[in-house]
Amino acid sequence: MTNGRAGLWLIGAYGGVGTTVAVGLSGLARGIAGSTGLVTALPAFERCGLANLADLVIGGHELRQTSYVEAADILCLKAGIFSADLLKACRDDLANASAAIRPGLAIGAGKCIEEMADWPGMTRRESCRATIARLQKDWSDFRAAHDLAQIVVINVASTEPLCPPAPCHDSLAALENALDRGDRAGLPASSLYAYAAIDAGYPYVNFTPSQGASTPALEQLAIERSCPIAGQDGKTGETLIKSVLAPMFLARNLQVLSWFGQNLIGNRDGLVLRNPANKSAKLASKDQVIAGVLGYQPQTQVGIEYVPSLDDWKTAWDFIHFQGFLGVKMSMQFTWQGCDSVLAAPLVIDLARLALLAQRRGERGVMRHLACFFKSPLGVEEHDFFKQFEALLEYASISGNGAGDEVTEVLNNARA
Amino acid sequence: MTNGRAGLWLIGAYGGVGTTVAVGLSGLARGIAGSTGLVTALPAFERCGLANLADLVIGGHELRQTSYVEAADILCLKAGIFSADLLKACRDDLANASAAIRPGLAIGAGKCIEEMADWPGMTRRESCRATIARLQKDWSDFRAAHDLAQIVVINVASTEPLCPPAPCHDSLAALENALDRGDRAGLPASSLYAYAAIDAGYPYVNFTPSQGASTPALEQLAIERSCPIAGQDGKTGETLIKSVLAPMFLARNLQVLSWFGQNLIGNRDGLVLRNPANKSAKLASKDQVIAGVLGYQPQTQVGIEYVPSLDDWKTAWDFIHFQGFLGVKMSMQFTWQGCDSVLAAPLVIDLARLALLAQRRGERGVMRHLACFFKSPLGVEEHDFFKQFEALLEYASISGNGAGDEVTEVLNNARA
Amino acid sequence: MTNGRAGLWLIGAYGGVGTTVAVGLSGLARGIAGSTGLVTALPAFERCGLANLADLVIGGHELRQTSYVEAADILCLKAGIFSADLLKACRDDLANASAAIRPGLAIGAGKCIEEMADWPGMTRRESCRATIARLQKDWSDFRAAHDLAQIVVINVASTEPLCPPAPCHDSLAALENALDRGDRAGLPASSLYAYAAIDAGYPYVNFTPSQGASTPALEQLAIERSCPIAGQDGKTGETLIKSVLAPMFLARNLQVLSWFGQNLIGNRDGLVLRNPANKSAKLASKDQVIAGVLGYQPQTQVGIEYVPSLDDWKTAWDFIHFQGFLGVKMSMQFTWQGCDSVLAAPLVIDLARLALLAQRRGERGVMRHLACFFKSPLGVEEHDFFKQFEALLEYASISGNGAGDEVTEVLNNARA
Amino acid sequence: MTNGRAGLWLIGAYGGVGTTVAVGLSGLARGIAGSTGLVTALPAFERCGLANLADLVIGGHELRQTSYVEAADILCLKAGIFSADLLKACRDDLANASAAIRPGLAIGAGKCIEEMADWPGMTRRESCRATIARLQKDWSDFRAAHDLAQIVVINVASTEPLCPPAPCHDSLAALENALDRGDRAGLPASSLYAYAAIDAGYPYVNFTPSQGASTPALEQLAIERSCPIAGQDGKTGETLIKSVLAPMFLARNLQVLSWFGQNLIGNRDGLVLRNPANKSAKLASKDQVIAGVLGYQPQTQVGIEYVPSLDDWKTAWDFIHFQGFLGVKMSMQFTWQGCDSVLAAPLVIDLARLALLAQRRGERGVMRHLACFFKSPLGVEEHDFFKQFEALLEYASISGNGAGDEVTEVLNNARA
Repeated sequence: MTNGRAGLWLIGAYGGVGTTVAVGLSGLARGIAGSTGLVTALPAFERCGLANLADLVIGGHELRQTSYVEAADILCLKAGIFSADLLKACRDDLANASAAIRPGLAIGAGKCIEEMADWPGMTRRESCRATIARLQKDWSDFRAAHDLAQIVVINVASTEPLCPPAPCHDSLAALENALDRGDRAGLPASSLYAYAAIDAGYPYVNFTPSQGASTPALEQLAIERSCPIAGQDGKTGETLIKSVLAPMFLARNLQVLSWFGQNLIGNRDGLVLRNPANKSAKLASKDQVIAGVLGYQPQTQVGIEYVPSLDDWKTAWDFIHFQGFLGVKMSMQFTWQGCDSVLAAPLVIDLARLALLAQRRGERGVMRHLACFFKSPLGVEEHDFFKQFEALLEYASISGNGAGDEVTEVLNNARA
Repeated sequence: MTNGRAGLWLIGAYGGVGTTVAVGLSGLARGIAGSTGLVTALPAFERCGLANLADLVIGGHELRQTSYVEAADILCLKAGIFSADLLKACRDDLANASAAIRPGLAIGAGKCIEEMADWPGMTRRESCRATIARLQKDWSDFRAAHDLAQIVVINVASTEPLCPPAPCHDSLAALENALDRGDRAGLPASSLYAYAAIDAGYPYVNFTPSQGASTPALEQLAIERSCPIAGQDGKTGETLIKSVLAPMFLARNLQVLSWFGQNLIGNRDGLVLRNPANKSAKLASKDQVIAGVLGYQPQTQVGIEYVPSLDDWKTAWDFIHFQGFLGVKMSMQFTWQGCDSVLAAPLVIDLARLALLAQRRGERGVMRHLACFFKSPLGVEEHDFFKQFEALLEYASISGNGAGDEVTEVLNNARA
Repeated sequence: MTNGRAGLWLIGAYGGVGTTVAVGLSGLARGIAGSTGLVTALPAFERCGLANLADLVIGGHELRQTSYVEAADILCLKAGIFSADLLKACRDDLANASAAIRPGLAIGAGKCIEEMADWPGMTRRESCRATIARLQKDWSDFRAAHDLAQIVVINVASTEPLCPPAPCHDSLAALENALDRGDRAGLPASSLYAYAAIDAGYPYVNFTPSQGASTPALEQLAIERSCPIAGQDGKTGETLIKSVLAPMFLARNLQVLSWFGQNLIGNRDGLVLRNPANKSAKLASKDQVIAGVLGYQPQTQVGIEYVPSLDDWKTAWDFIHFQGFLGVKMSMQFTWQGCDSVLAAPLVIDLARLALLAQRRGERGVMRHLACFFKSPLGVEEHDFFKQFEALLEYASISGNGAGDEVTEVLNNARA
Repeated sequence: MTNGRAGLWLIGAYGGVGTTVAVGLSGLARGIAGSTGLVTALPAFERCGLANLADLVIGGHELRQTSYVEAADILCLKAGIFSADLLKACRDDLANASAAIRPGLAIGAGKCIEEMADWPGMTRRESCRATIARLQKDWSDFRAAHDLAQIVVINVASTEPLCPPAPCHDSLAALENALDRGDRAGLPASSLYAYAAIDAGYPYVNFTPSQGASTPALEQLAIERSCPIAGQDGKTGETLIKSVLAPMFLARNLQVLSWFGQNLIGNRDGLVLRNPANKSAKLASKDQVIAGVLGYQPQTQVGIEYVPSLDDWKTAWDFIHFQGFLGVKMSMQFTWQGCDSVLAAPLVIDLARLALLAQRRGERGVMRHLACFFKSPLGVEEHDFFKQFEALLEYASISGNGAGDEVTEVLNNARA
């Protein structure tokens, strides 16, 4: 069974994650890459009617003028994550994918990101409405060029600075008014992309902590356009482990006194996060898990430092100080050494398949069953990884049975 | 509401775990110790009708002639786990508890443990039937002396060597015949205790990897005597974390290549485990979790070394080598630094309360809902900690509602 | 042989380090504490003519109104570092020592420290000259009361904020002029103490990163008053290990790419270091070692976070990323878990004995042979711990031989 | 200045270390590899008259029939340690080097190693004298073919089992007699190689813990043939760090209570070490450093486990439990993650250059100044890395000055 070809549109296309998605999809389609790391390759998802991996076509927006071949070569050289054989076999596919990459939005992504933009043809000054129209035209061109039944838009760009709250984000009407007035409306780039995608009926998934579609206004738009959305901030490493370990302390009634986490990272993401404005957005997202799981607030702290020599290899150390019976203090520490792009890319492919499925099933608004993929899951308070994952499995099992109404129920249950 | 006083009979009464149970129960009864570390103190268990902590009375069997006061002073000096104030307040209770400790079984616990036995009055040569009668008399005396409504027997003694398989363990009839013939029947001390307890209708819980009640013959006896049993090998530290982390690798479809664990421990348990025969029993119990969760067998290895300077402070290092998308190898490592007695003691109290409850509810045979407490849960294949814990919560929720039949269902569900 | 009794005057007397010094000296004098951790107890120092430990008498300045008994009880309760028996045996000595503690200088130690001051009798407004006279009177009273042949003043108070450079610190004449004018002269508390001590001919040792005697003006005063000085910032844990490991990377020609260190600490020192002004002084001191040893500047970063649950137990994680043959990147990480007061106290005693010896030997100015004790050794560029230690051993061997001139040579050699 | 071309003959030529030496020398000669990791590239060795790196020619003995190109490709694929560009540039050199590899000695290396031997033409049965003659002919052929002024023989083969003591190893006369009688003389392969090399006047360096030249008989032969020798067991990772950290504990008078080390390794060396006989030789070598430095014996334990997924990436965890002032127990732990071949290869090149230099300088017998390179330095009791390194620097400084007699003195001083 096939659902036709579908477009996977990446915002931040040539970043480490985007490049690994492109290499990975090519490798999978050619049968030289395995499905390890893909959640949707687990047996539980076999009968859900997910898009075939070979039917996904890459497109994207980007600020830097390069190509997938070049980006993959650099990633291979610096992080050592692609074998020479794999890169050789994927070269043509990567060249083709590069042809579908378009200049994106530098403005509204924060000064630090704007300074990376080097694509000369990129229009830098235009009204929001004009931007939205431009983005939507990119997508309709893409759709036509590749005969795509669906498109899903996934934001894998660098973290933007935290947005100051703006009244026009609180309701769709206010936002539309602001846009009509030619107002910038305080919209960061990620939210402009989100508006454009949702408005055109394309599912939007935010793999970063940037604002994206996480406002009442855009959630309302998603309902109105019958468009599924999800986010935010992919849970790939240290925070994933937090959401796995914290429930154990709760279940054993061990009191966490303090939980200190330190992340070292050397890729472009880390470079952007050197900027205090961008960093604060990230840290806020990373730091809510523990109290969210435990139900009380121990001392928590999480740091991110840019260590260029590590490149894409995130090295995180967490120290957990806890108290057991009779007040005795004990500790656990862990070091996580993972390659960020390699951890994130399969989840991006998973989210694409699941968002495309949701759209075909007629679901709209926040996909709460995807909480296990995110550090700050939209619309879900639950931070216990296994409870989040149970909700996904339940969704998969219902979808696999072809049921409809129960899905809604799952979504509602996931709300609590 | 009260269920009357109940006896908590500890095999290996003066060990670190037993001593911490005695100090802890005294501290709890006197309101100077908190309930951190007690699973049954979680809100989920509030309405289950568990025994009041103040109603538990300590008794036990032991091989070494000492006292709770002395054992607690030494533990305090070496491991620093009791405050001077706590010890002072509990001194009288500990002296009283010591009065209820009786000489146990040195024979059949392995050479290493036998050599520790120094209680002169301990009868060393008697038939199995005579031993069983002696143990049962200890319990009925204890019951009468303290006016106890129930007794639960929990084995917290050092690990025995692995038992060679013996045909008479496979059916109760064969075992009874062997005992009638005056045959030793290949019964290790732990199984003799178990037989005696179950035969007299006292729930038996095995907190060690020793054989205890884990044979078809004794499971059958438990059914016949309407007696609940549980085991084995309390899951307090490194293995607990394994059963928490391994499911994450499965859920993310990350392939574990190798999982190496090293435990350093300096208490009497560690001393006994220096003996290769005793150690192999422990390692077999610790090493089954990962393949049990993952459904495939990566390279796993687990070591235990005796490091006297650490005393009761278990220090464990685990190194997990795993493969993600596109074959990239990554790693995670953790160090666990916990005090074994302090981690185990509240779980022993939990198990006592839950076993007493099960008996009052008329349950018999293996308590499968207690799997989350054990490294090698009897009758349960599931090693995912959170699934095990869900089964316990479901049991608690049903018990809390006063339901009956559903309990059986939970037990059956937990079987798979 | 005896050199008479000598006073060990502690600035910050009731802090964790000061309290451990007091408990330790009492325990040593009474024969119930061993000499582990005391560098001067090594055989190499046997024949140097160091002061007997039993001849050291404690006095000190402090801002908080408490006592050694109280401070030791709290340290014991929170960090668990003194046995009940030790505390009991030392109780009288501690009470006596408390009698010699005088109100110190709150002003000029930074806002954060000033706010801790709660000693009502403490004169808060006085000219610098008046302060100096007051301090010197405290010392002469102390000397008279205990019939002391010598006094050494050691600063173990919390870290002050970094001082802005002031011209009057550059020459003694300028400083004297400023003081004569009634000018505050930009002198932090630590430097006022230093001036007062040196001016009166008492050796001054700065165990903190505060400015103390580390200015040309005060070094000149030390020469003029024939007074030995040393500092600064005791090297007790993470930085010690850095100064041990970095030379190995140099000797093996392995290129350090980045060295990231994170310190977690929960005592009063950590509390003060939460203040960015105080923290920057500490970090500057900690961060110079690696480049100092290697001769080139890799990326280095060092953090300190206040984690109250840890109390006096410093937990530090260092991650070292390095490159070997053929450009291959490798890593080493370590976790240090040490009790700060327990590590620092014996070094303070060592420094007292060595400073007293130097004074008796007629040495003046910076004691360069003490570099191995400090993170930022005054007058010494060498950060390789073992080379620093060699210089100390050479000094000890010369002192042990009763030689004189060679000492000067050692000092000069240590300069490079 | 040049000393002519010199042969670097590797026993175990195609192993990870040998292959990395071959790739590295080619890369260095072609100017595409840097000298990081080479101790002899430090400024201190500039004026010693060491052989030019480009003048070293590779030859070797081996048991497995393969080639440098194949071995390097596999190492690249599995451990990711050579860049594609480097391998491409070195391809011709590797092919040439392979032409100089000859079948070695399978017999006498232990069963485990013998089973790896697959070179069909390899003579498996011959008398010791015949073997010695065969090896010496290989070397004279090599010398003639490449016009070599000198040859140095370095053993980088897998660890042999421990040799039982044999009387004929105690004196050269006894050994010669045994060989004349056609006796096997209990000589392991490594010692036969050593005999043959030394007898022919070629310096012999043992980079493994195998017996090699470490017997009185062969030391005597080295003196008689005026041949320098060195060994044994290259100090590349965990043991290196031990020899760096242990002196710090001594210098600070901190008492090490226990030091536990665990090594995980997945290369052929690890595979051989799975064999208990081979492993015991290695562990004996690794476990002597700590007591050797400290002067007392804390509890020490060191383990090696074969973890194939790690391949050449040694991962070691060490836990150090120590006691400070007032008996307080503290701990330090480190994890070392290094690539064994990459760490060892430059040291092998260093040793070759230093042995060739020694021979040109007319030195004979054990080169004690090379102790810093070895876990079990022949003829040297000193295990403190920095003292060992000082001895090497002193040798280099004397050699650099063209002095002669002082060298002997250095050697003698290094004896203590």
